[in-house]
Amino acid sequence: MPARPDGAALGALADLVPGRVSTRPADLDAAARDASACAPARPDAVVWPLVTEEVAAVVRFAAARGIAITARGAGSSLEGNPIPVAGGIVLDCSRMTAVVAVRPEDLQVDVQPGVVYAALNRTLRPYGLFFPPSPGGSADVATVGGMVANNASGIYSVKYGGTRDHVRAATVVTGTGEVLRLGNRCRKSASGYHLLGLVVGSEGTLAIATELTLALAGLPAARRQGGFRFPDAPAAARATADLVRFGVDVAAVEFLDAPTVAAIARLGVAGLDPAPCLLVEVHGSAAGVGETWETAADVVAAAGGAPLVLPDGRDAWSIRERATRAVEALRPDGATVRADLAIPIGALPALVERCEAVGRARRLPFHCFGHAGIGILHVLARVGAAERAAAEAARDELVDAVLALGGSCSGEHGMGLGNRRFAPREHGSALALMAGVKRLFDPHEILNPGKIW
Amino acid sequence: MPARPDGAALGALADLVPGRVSTRPADLDAAARDASACAPARPDAVVWPLVTEEVAAVVRFAAARGIAITARGAGSSLEGNPIPVAGGIVLDCSRMTAVVAVRPEDLQVDVQPGVVYAALNRTLRPYGLFFPPSPGGSADVATVGGMVANNASGIYSVKYGGTRDHVRAATVVTGTGEVLRLGNRCRKSASGYHLLGLVVGSEGTLAIATELTLALAGLPAARRQGGFRFPDAPAAARATADLVRFGVDVAAVEFLDAPTVAAIARLGVAGLDPAPCLLVEVHGSAAGVGETWETAADVVAAAGGAPLVLPDGRDAWSIRERATRAVEALRPDGATVRADLAIPIGALPALVERCEAVGRARRLPFHCFGHAGIGILHVLARVGAAERAAAEAARDELVDAVLALGGSCSGEHGMGLGNRRFAPREHGSALALMAGVKRLFDPHEILNPGKIW
Repeated sequence: MPARPDGAALGALADLVPGRVSTRPADLDAAARDASACAPARPDAVVWPLVTEEVAAVVRFAAARGIAITARGAGSSLEGNPIPVAGGIVLDCSRMTAVVAVRPEDLQVDVQPGVVYAALNRTLRPYGLFFPPSPGGSADVATVGGMVANNASGIYSVKYGGTRDHVRAATVVTGTGEVLRLGNRCRKSASGYHLLGLVVGSEGTLAIATELTLALAGLPAARRQGGFRFPDAPAAARATADLVRFGVDVAAVEFLDAPTVAAIARLGVAGLDPAPCLLVEVHGSAAGVGETWETAADVVAAAGGAPLVLPDGRDAWSIRERATRAVEALRPDGATVRADLAIPIGALPALVERCEAVGRARRLPFHCFGHAGIGILHVLARVGAAERAAAEAARDELVDAVLALGGSCSGEHGMGLGNRRFAPREHGSALALMAGVKRLFDPHEILNPGKIW
Repeated sequence: MPARPDGAALGALADLVPGRVSTRPADLDAAARDASACAPARPDAVVWPLVTEEVAAVVRFAAARGIAITARGAGSSLEGNPIPVAGGIVLDCSRMTAVVAVRPEDLQVDVQPGVVYAALNRTLRPYGLFFPPSPGGSADVATVGGMVANNASGIYSVKYGGTRDHVRAATVVTGTGEVLRLGNRCRKSASGYHLLGLVVGSEGTLAIATELTLALAGLPAARRQGGFRFPDAPAAARATADLVRFGVDVAAVEFLDAPTVAAIARLGVAGLDPAPCLLVEVHGSAAGVGETWETAADVVAAAGGAPLVLPDGRDAWSIRERATRAVEALRPDGATVRADLAIPIGALPALVERCEAVGRARRLPFHCFGHAGIGILHVLARVGAAERAAAEAARDELVDAVLALGGSCSGEHGMGLGNRRFAPREHGSALALMAGVKRLFDPHEILNPGKIW
């Protein structure tokens, strides 16, 4: 169990990072929670570092005293990932916002971890480049560091991959305060063990990234997008699996079930028909994008999809990004119980059927949506305190079903506090090796304790 | 230092895997070398396992006695990766050739590690699928297990990625003989530490994979390929960097310098002009492939490339795959000193110029070629014993240059024996963590000792 800093330690910490350490209740409260329904936990202090050396100094300070230290970005995570359950220091990286270097000739950018996803892409736009793993509804707040910690994915991951696929190199601070450079600036290499891939997705439990080299993609010359409605949710899932199986070069395939669409309509998108739907986008050349779109539309039509007219000529993503908030708005005083299921794509139709069956059998108001093109399905139940245990039992049933199908308990939100209960079931005896890796990077067990498993 | 098995141990080993253990000199000699110029080293025994349980039993046997155990595929590696420098047992996986399950609905296949790359793709062809990271000239011999051990890439990696990008799950045996399942069958997940990515590319030093779940791609509906000749090698490199920078959707971009083309011509491809060239392929729909090809041709022309007529209507890859053998044939009694350089793509023209300058200054017969589209450049000198030290000094100079440019000492051949000298320079203090990972997976230090660093 990590130690709590006493008054003397807090004073020394304030001297270490002058003017950017706080113990004010409002700051501690802000650092106590994320966007999940997990119980908040206050740290003893919040530090806002600006450079690698400050992060290293604070980690060494904490390591010497056995104090927990939890790095944090925007707090838009959904499984309690940055909640400082053991108190101690929260390292709020949201002021490390420098875009250090854009290298269009290498299709790369070097950034500090606090840069916000949408801001980064605004910076990259004049170069004709973008960082593809879009975090959807939180693009305006999510930091790149948080995305790396969670190995985030997004609407464009079906074409461009997830965050881990785009991290080429990083400067990181381990749990001893040692500064390491991992990876290199090559697209591909075969040199040594892939420690960088291990740090990406480790939720700040192995090391804290202080600078990141990211691979970029060229902005598409042309895009086309639209929606399709389906007679039932499994038909939409079948259309998704077909698009992938037939190799249609889709950039995004997002699924929303009827209850989710109804919730979005209620939140202010008048005229939106409450039917299960897919929102699809394709990228390509001005000449080629039409052909790809027609191919996608043919596959979708064969699976029972019909074009969906979006109200007021709305952009598909302005609808999609409201999904989480729309479900929350159904019951403002409730809590969201959420599954973040990942599945082999061929099993998506079966999983969608299973979600509907479990929701019916347990009489729970499930809302299903997600990055269907990469086999990720979020199942949300917005419930009051009385229903919470039942909703969690239903969620566990779905996770068991997904694991039996070769899937994973987390597609993109990470383990945090919410999913860590599933770690033994999913990883079995590999967990012992994971624990060994943890001891190696963080021998004092101070980095974001209580997470992952 | 691992122990050598005595007669009693060899007898017990023969009882463990009846009929598939050999101590015959011819078998020990075959297991003593790979396709590199590294000095061979004989093991004490060769075992041909068929199933996971046999691999685990042999590893436990070796672990109990502290005997080295080195897994091996076809031995087509180029840096001495499977040479059993500490003797002991070679685990020849080349009889583990089962294609366990093809799952076209998931775009996945489960295989044993001994399946040969070309044979796997023949099996997948009726499903309209293929495993993209083609190992070029060794496609007819290289095993999937060897490709995974080296994180191999190939001519199609510029569009489809490298081997690590295609490994979804694996059954592995660690250095204690424990059988673990790593990863899952999802395209994307965010659950636990990415141990699987660590095992891929670890050259059999962390664990031995006994079953692999691989992600596949759909066979392209249409392809178009051809060659382009350039007035000088840096112009070809600039064309490559431009193709990548402008986001042209190329499937392959291979570079051959003039001496390499001349060597190939000499090996029997009459009529091949000895100019620096690029071999390019694009994949797409029947309607779209022409447009992509024209875009690529325009970019290449702007960089000074002119269409190259391949003799006798030859396939570009039948030429490319001869590169290594053609250089060897220039001096059958010589040895190949080789660099396997990886570089950020924007630095490729500068690297090509540097290679030419170093070759000129040191009066060494350099041959440069490689997967230029992913920034990998092989530099080969075929030399006699008297020139070997000079060639190695020149190679070291090039590696230093590449590291200074943010590159890597190995693009795809791995560290093995040949590149491990560069590990401290490339990885710095991260090497201590790599050593810790090694101890975690292989506490008795019996798995392929003496490699990586």
